[in-house]
Amino acid sequence: MRPIDEVVKRIRRGKVFLISSHINLEGDSLGSELALAYILKRLRKKFFIYNMSGLPRNYRFLPLLDFLKIKRIKEFDTAIILDCSESNRLGEVKKMLTSDKVIINIDHHPDNNYFGTVNWVEPTASAVGELIYKLYKKLKIPLNRDVALCLYTAIMTDTGGFRNENTTSSTHRIIAHLLKYGFKPSSVFENVYEGHSLSRMKLLGLGFDNLKMDKKRKIAWMTISQEMLKKAKADLDDIEGFVEIIRSLKGVKLAILFQELSDNKIKIGFRSREGIDAGKLASIFGGGGHFAASGCIVEGKLEKVEKMVIDRIKKEL
Amino acid sequence: MRPIDEVVKRIRRGKVFLISSHINLEGDSLGSELALAYILKRLRKKFFIYNMSGLPRNYRFLPLLDFLKIKRIKEFDTAIILDCSESNRLGEVKKMLTSDKVIINIDHHPDNNYFGTVNWVEPTASAVGELIYKLYKKLKIPLNRDVALCLYTAIMTDTGGFRNENTTSSTHRIIAHLLKYGFKPSSVFENVYEGHSLSRMKLLGLGFDNLKMDKKRKIAWMTISQEMLKKAKADLDDIEGFVEIIRSLKGVKLAILFQELSDNKIKIGFRSREGIDAGKLASIFGGGGHFAASGCIVEGKLEKVEKMVIDRIKKEL
Repeated sequence: MRPIDEVVKRIRRGKVFLISSHINLEGDSLGSELALAYILKRLRKKFFIYNMSGLPRNYRFLPLLDFLKIKRIKEFDTAIILDCSESNRLGEVKKMLTSDKVIINIDHHPDNNYFGTVNWVEPTASAVGELIYKLYKKLKIPLNRDVALCLYTAIMTDTGGFRNENTTSSTHRIIAHLLKYGFKPSSVFENVYEGHSLSRMKLLGLGFDNLKMDKKRKIAWMTISQEMLKKAKADLDDIEGFVEIIRSLKGVKLAILFQELSDNKIKIGFRSREGIDAGKLASIFGGGGHFAASGCIVEGKLEKVEKMVIDRIKKEL
Repeated sequence: MRPIDEVVKRIRRGKVFLISSHINLEGDSLGSELALAYILKRLRKKFFIYNMSGLPRNYRFLPLLDFLKIKRIKEFDTAIILDCSESNRLGEVKKMLTSDKVIINIDHHPDNNYFGTVNWVEPTASAVGELIYKLYKKLKIPLNRDVALCLYTAIMTDTGGFRNENTTSSTHRIIAHLLKYGFKPSSVFENVYEGHSLSRMKLLGLGFDNLKMDKKRKIAWMTISQEMLKKAKADLDDIEGFVEIIRSLKGVKLAILFQELSDNKIKIGFRSREGIDAGKLASIFGGGGHFAASGCIVEGKLEKVEKMVIDRIKKEL
C-alpha cells in the first residue's frame, strides 16, 4: 500500500487525533497543521492541535487559527506529526506518543528517521503543505479560501518565496490552483516577511558592525547580544531573517548567526549554499535541520561559544 | 483581429527588425528582448537589439546575451518595443521610429498610450515575459532551456519574486511549464537579488541613520548622498532594492528614496502600497511608472529637492 493510502486508512479509522509539529513553529508546520485540522473537521473527527512553541507574530494573519484554541484531550488514539524529522524535535509532546497510540509521520525532510507507525515521507516535496494538498485531492475534500491560504503560506515560506532549490514545476502547479481561491499573494508576503520595525533595521546595522568574514572559507558570522537588543530597542522576533541576509553577501557560502538568548544560552543558526551541509554542521553541536538551513542551542558565554563553534567549523570545511 | 494575431502577421511580414525597451533596463525588459530575439532567429529574420541602457551587473548570468552584440542595422523596417508605456521612455531610440517604420508595441502597463502601429497591451499580464511566452505558443516555436530561463527571469523579477499583486494563477501555470526546462530557480534569485556586497550593507546602515518618517501619513524616506557612497565604498548598483526595504518597514505605505546621482541631479524612487498611486506621484515631478513603483529625476541640490518633494507629496496625500 502506498504511504498516502495508509495515511488515509489510519485517518478514517482513528477517533480522536492529536496534531503536532516541531518546536520553533513556522509557516509550513503551522499552515499544514491548520489545513489538516480542517480535513479532520470535515471528516467529523475529534482533534486538537498541541505544539511546544507558540504562534509567531508574523503568522497571526492566518485563517483557521481558532483550531489552536481547541482544548487538549487526554485520551486521543492517533497522533499526526507534521514536518518533523525525528520525534526529539517535538519537545515535551514526544512524551505523549506512548506505545498505545498510532503515530502518523508526514514529512519532507530527507533525514526523517521513520519514527511513526505509518511514515509518509516525500523528500522531493517542497513543503509538507504540498503533501496536505495531495491529501485533500485524495480524500476529495473541496478546498476553500481559508485552506488555500494556509497551504499557500506553508509552501511559500518553506520555499523561501519560491526561490529555494526545493521549488519545482509541481510546486508552481499547486500554487496556480491555490491562487484561484481569491486571496492576495502580496498580502501574505507582507504579513510574513515585511512589517519590519525600524528597531530591526537599527539592530541589523549594529550586527553589521561586528560582522566577521573568513574569505578563504567563504564563511561570515554575526553575533547579536542582549545589549545590542537593548540599544536598538528590538526584541528576539526582530532577528528573524538576519542569517539569510548574511548568506546573501557576495562570496558567502556559509552564514552563521549567534544569538544570545540569555546570559548563558546561545542560539546558533546556519544557512549554507553550494554543497555545504548545514544540517551536518548543526548536528556537531547537538542540533539539526535541512541541508541549507539548520540550527542548535549551545550553553556558554557568547564570546566563548562563538570562538569554539567557528574553530570547529573551520576544521570541518 | 486579436492584437496577438496582428503582431504575428506583422512579424511574418517584416524583414529587418529593431528590438528595444525602456531606459533603465531590468529583468522583464531584458529577458523578454532576448526571448523575442530567439523567435526572430528561428523565423530567419534579420534583427538587432538596441537599448539606451547597458546591461545591469546582476543580469550578466542570462543566456542568449550574444544577441545584444549583433551590429546595429540602419535599414530596418519593423520595430518591436517591449515593456514601454510611451515612446518617450525609449530615450534616443525614439528618433529611430520614423513614420516609415512599422512599430509593434507589446506591453502590460495599464497607462500605455498605444504609440504603435500595432498595440498588444495586456494589463493583467504580470510581465511582458508572459506575453512573449504566449507568442511562443501561438507561433508553435518550441521552448528550450535558454529561452525558459530568460522568460522565467522576466516574470520572476516583474512580480518581485511572485509576491506582487500582479501575480496570478496563470503566472504560476506558466512558471510551472518553464521550470520543466531544468534550470535552478535558486540560482536565478541569487544572481538577481543576492551577491550583495558588504559595502551595500554598510551603506544601508548609513541610510537608516538619516531615515525620516511621517507616521501620520505613513511615509518614510531616505537620502543617499555621494559622500555616503564614498564612506561605505559603495557604488550606485549597491542602492538597488533600498526603496523596497524602506517600504517593508512597519506602518509605511509610501517609501521614497533620494539618490544623489551628481551634484545637481537627484534620482527619486517611489514605492507604495494599499491604494497609493506611486505613478501619479512621480508624474508630478516629470516621471512615471506603475501604480506601486515609479521614479523621476529632479535637478537641484539634495536637501532642497528632498524638502520640495516631501512638502508636495504631503499635500497630495
